[in-house]
Amino acid sequence: MLKLYFAPGSCALASLIALEESGLAYEPGRLNLANGDQRQPDYLAINPKGRVPALVTDKGVITENIAIMTYIAQIAPAAKLTPLDDPFEFAQLQSFNSYIASTVHINHSHKGRGYRWTDDAAAIETMKAKVPQTMAESFALIEERMLKGPWVMGEQYTIADGYLFTMESWLPGDGVDRDRFAKVSAHYARMLERPAVQKALAVEKGNPA
Amino acid sequence: MLKLYFAPGSCALASLIALEESGLAYEPGRLNLANGDQRQPDYLAINPKGRVPALVTDKGVITENIAIMTYIAQIAPAAKLTPLDDPFEFAQLQSFNSYIASTVHINHSHKGRGYRWTDDAAAIETMKAKVPQTMAESFALIEERMLKGPWVMGEQYTIADGYLFTMESWLPGDGVDRDRFAKVSAHYARMLERPAVQKALAVEKGNPA
Repeated sequence: MLKLYFAPGSCALASLIALEESGLAYEPGRLNLANGDQRQPDYLAINPKGRVPALVTDKGVITENIAIMTYIAQIAPAAKLTPLDDPFEFAQLQSFNSYIASTVHINHSHKGRGYRWTDDAAAIETMKAKVPQTMAESFALIEERMLKGPWVMGEQYTIADGYLFTMESWLPGDGVDRDRFAKVSAHYARMLERPAVQKALAVEKGNPA
Repeated sequence: MLKLYFAPGSCALASLIALEESGLAYEPGRLNLANGDQRQPDYLAINPKGRVPALVTDKGVITENIAIMTYIAQIAPAAKLTPLDDPFEFAQLQSFNSYIASTVHINHSHKGRGYRWTDDAAAIETMKAKVPQTMAESFALIEERMLKGPWVMGEQYTIADGYLFTMESWLPGDGVDRDRFAKVSAHYARMLERPAVQKALAVEKGNPA
């Protein structure tokens, strides 16, 4: 069976939602980042990067949300989580997910993970101070140019929606009022109504049904 | 015809190499980032993010290397640039490319683009100082755990090789001795021998054959 390693409050929620939407059976592997579970030898043997998410399959381990979510979509095609048969539409989905991974998530990481890029305590504080601005700028672009509505790609729900939802859930903690962005806040509310999202949030909290 | 917008010295080299390897006809659209070409209204109409690369197709624009390179591989399947028919192998490729985009490239960006994440000049200097360390750590992981050899994915050359080559080409400027990493430096030398890579480097310099 598939096993997904994740941690509460992390970007792994996107892969957790994709799994719940897929209908595939899986075992949750819950790590506590504050306790340093991700740096224990047994976990580093699974993912030498010491990060979440990591999906253990019968063929081997897959890391990085972009790869995990597309894999889930490919092995559960009936759930229609990705436009697999249309290269241009697939590219648009990949582009959205790549923007989340390499811009939006990185903006957010400068709040709590500044030590990755500087050893200076004062510099880390200046990074934290800019997070409300960079996250708001990214979400202005998402609101105005990227989120088609009602879902990221338009009428069809895809893996991009769980990824965007994860970023949306971080906005209040990043000092950004989600209600400034009408389409984004409507998307967030729409996501909360999905049974798979509710299930993923329960699993994240350690309370699967 | 396809048109690829790129800039010399940028990560768009990865998409340029993919195009040259694919054999597809394309028009090069060369921007000068130092002149601010990427912030001109005509380019922002193509890519509102003000970044490169951007691929203009007859269906619309695709941004982000991960999306552009996979699209090229999908519309030119004879070039075998991506394991499109094997979800697990495709996931491994996507995982590698996602690590480049969201970790390795981000490490590098803290040398010349620190202003994205702080407004403090002293903080920017502390970020620059850590780049040799973060790039070396990422390349140690690539050397020891990710680069199968002779190519990233093993015996078959893929789009990941052009992306890795782009990061390898940045190492000296990032204060990292490429020769510290035997497999990585052999990969870099192997890439320089490929006609498509030589052609892409010529196009990047503004001297297509």
